[in-house]
Amino acid sequence: MKRYKNPSKNKWRDLCQRPLVQLDTIQSTVKKVFDEVEKHGDKAVKQYTQQFDGVALGAIEVTQDEIKLASDKISNELKKAIDLAKSNITKFHRAQRNNKTQIITTTQGVDCWLEHRPIEKVGIYIPGGSAPLFSTVMMLAIPASMAGCEEVVLCSPPDQYGNLSDVILYTAQCCDIHKIYKVGGIQAIASMALGTETVPKVDKIFGPGNQYVTAAKQYLQHYQVAIDLPAGPSEVLVIADQSANPVFVASDLLAQAEHGHDSQVVLLSDDMDFIENVLEKVKKQTQHLHRKDIIEKSLKNGMTIYFPDLNDAIEFSNIYAPEHLIIATENADALCQKITNAGSVFIGPYSPESIGDYASGTNHTLPTNGWARQCSGVTVQSFQKTISFQKISEKGLYHIGPSVELLADAEGLDAHKNAVSVRLDHMKSKNLIS
Amino acid sequence: MKRYKNPSKNKWRDLCQRPLVQLDTIQSTVKKVFDEVEKHGDKAVKQYTQQFDGVALGAIEVTQDEIKLASDKISNELKKAIDLAKSNITKFHRAQRNNKTQIITTTQGVDCWLEHRPIEKVGIYIPGGSAPLFSTVMMLAIPASMAGCEEVVLCSPPDQYGNLSDVILYTAQCCDIHKIYKVGGIQAIASMALGTETVPKVDKIFGPGNQYVTAAKQYLQHYQVAIDLPAGPSEVLVIADQSANPVFVASDLLAQAEHGHDSQVVLLSDDMDFIENVLEKVKKQTQHLHRKDIIEKSLKNGMTIYFPDLNDAIEFSNIYAPEHLIIATENADALCQKITNAGSVFIGPYSPESIGDYASGTNHTLPTNGWARQCSGVTVQSFQKTISFQKISEKGLYHIGPSVELLADAEGLDAHKNAVSVRLDHMKSKNLIS
Repeated sequence: MKRYKNPSKNKWRDLCQRPLVQLDTIQSTVKKVFDEVEKHGDKAVKQYTQQFDGVALGAIEVTQDEIKLASDKISNELKKAIDLAKSNITKFHRAQRNNKTQIITTTQGVDCWLEHRPIEKVGIYIPGGSAPLFSTVMMLAIPASMAGCEEVVLCSPPDQYGNLSDVILYTAQCCDIHKIYKVGGIQAIASMALGTETVPKVDKIFGPGNQYVTAAKQYLQHYQVAIDLPAGPSEVLVIADQSANPVFVASDLLAQAEHGHDSQVVLLSDDMDFIENVLEKVKKQTQHLHRKDIIEKSLKNGMTIYFPDLNDAIEFSNIYAPEHLIIATENADALCQKITNAGSVFIGPYSPESIGDYASGTNHTLPTNGWARQCSGVTVQSFQKTISFQKISEKGLYHIGPSVELLADAEGLDAHKNAVSVRLDHMKSKNLIS
Repeated sequence: MKRYKNPSKNKWRDLCQRPLVQLDTIQSTVKKVFDEVEKHGDKAVKQYTQQFDGVALGAIEVTQDEIKLASDKISNELKKAIDLAKSNITKFHRAQRNNKTQIITTTQGVDCWLEHRPIEKVGIYIPGGSAPLFSTVMMLAIPASMAGCEEVVLCSPPDQYGNLSDVILYTAQCCDIHKIYKVGGIQAIASMALGTETVPKVDKIFGPGNQYVTAAKQYLQHYQVAIDLPAGPSEVLVIADQSANPVFVASDLLAQAEHGHDSQVVLLSDDMDFIENVLEKVKKQTQHLHRKDIIEKSLKNGMTIYFPDLNDAIEFSNIYAPEHLIIATENADALCQKITNAGSVFIGPYSPESIGDYASGTNHTLPTNGWARQCSGVTVQSFQKTISFQKISEKGLYHIGPSVELLADAEGLDAHKNAVSVRLDHMKSKNLIS
């Protein structure tokens, strides 16, 4: 990890830069795959699965039998742990539902209100590879269900034998997802965006993925399909003072670092000795971890910064806008009030980020790469849209119609004015108004 | 307007297609302008203002004197109308603020909550040209202010004399916007995205614009600046039965048609005679409107569809997902319950869309081109982001820690597990837990 001591403010923006991800070279592949899936549907999907994943797919859709078999292979212990996580995630997201309509009478006779409606069809992408991210299934399927989405579709790449991970299938079934497809990468995103004979077309696609999936999700702006968040490597920023336990802080940095070689870990502290102490613990703990190689690579992107004043650490963190922010200081609660930009905040010594990844109840689909400045993590609202309604009575139109005529006139839009005038004239002719 | 009679369902998707907008050819210009503004700042901005708008700009920023002068030129009548609109928009948007924090204890000792924070810096783009859209200034500045944004920047293209419209300046000042710049088109979006010596860099850009502005906003994904909504021509869909007044319905179609030659107007009805009657009124009213030429062009994109069953009309409307939906039927309230996709809904005979454009209080920045299937119009939340927080006590970790260890293990992420284990071990060693 790189070490900085009290860097001057004009260097902060540069320090907040994440390693660049170059996606332009993938764009032509993405376009080709979308074109082929649009033309040839399932046939193209199978062909690309052969080409990119080296798997000759039989059926694209997972069968009920496969789900049953997978479920039988999960230990009761793990099933219980999944139950606990599901219960907490459900509790937290259920509270986000906003079903009561508040009618605002802006002027007598002018009633306005907002209503939330589910996005009808949504797609969830779950990456394959070394780690079966069944926790992400819960993080997306549960809010979709709370939002009331009609159809939830899940795509995940098959392994070399053409199967999905047992625990992904089990979790999907627990979360009431019944449409599961063995498709990964660009062809998965294309299938859900365009629809094929087997895979339904959806309106919004959620979920993480590698650079190919990211490039494919970016391409969706051409196809009128929304996405959850701009993607980027995972990251954590820890603010700690001498009151923190260096063993805990080291373990938090390492939990982040194991995600991938491009993950970023940052430690800010007002205590030089504490920083050194953490770095020593990092070294020590790394030796016992399976993903040591990945960790050692990603720590090279990491940094520690000494700030004599913790207020500077907070200010830096707000510019960095971390996906995960751990505050391990004596006055953690007070510092929290000053946080303006972060995806999810973990307060105090017993709130490791990995608890939020799985089971505290908050969502782990969060803005990375500084997008926390302007984007939120996934909530129930990510699976809904808001529609505004207005109902205006004769009296209401009488009150505000003349002002609207004036305003439309000032904008040079006389057909807008006319839509009010014909109504006011009608009311006059019927003696509805004087 | 094209007329269809009870088209079969397999034709509906095609009928819902909007005219395609081709932006690819503009992309290279957009890239060039962004590169130049990044390198040369204000100098590039002035150069492009000369090149594209034919205006030799002095100062880019509008002065207090200019605002004062503009304000003096606005009639008291218009000022009053602006006041009324501002008051209604403020009432409606103030109610959207969500400042109370609800802590959810998902498991004993595990507290989770969401907090809303303003996006610090936002930009508003207001198009120039024939109609000074000062109503859009209110529709964006008021929710920004309700959200608590620190800095609100406004860009709008100067006229041939290098000035902005008086009423835009007056309205901006009423809405507490003090940073106003005479910049339009691609260079405006680039200035706010990148920052120049004069124009501050912002985190999210709002507002409508022509194809150049739209292409520039699309390009922002490369610069980590968010946008309000994907853009498209404005549109209205009216559902009316024999109880509706054909004069009113005709005026609503025309109000939409005058926006631009690419606006789309659609009328659905279960009464053939009513449709003919409306078309006749459309013809008649058009003769008296200033923007007759634009209207006649845009009506060519328009259509009427006869559906014997109004339920089919609702189903069609939900697939079309109109920006504006007017329901002028006897049972309008009941039909509203069936609406799944729309930007803003206008209920009953005295709720013309132009009232929502200016003064009912709802926001007129809405999803077009079918994006209402998955996107919301602008609300106070568009100017905020949501941050999740969690605070876990020793007891909380004791309760859910072991499950998290299992879950992390099942995902093959042992550094995630370790972050919990080191804490549980510590608690054991201190006899904090048995």
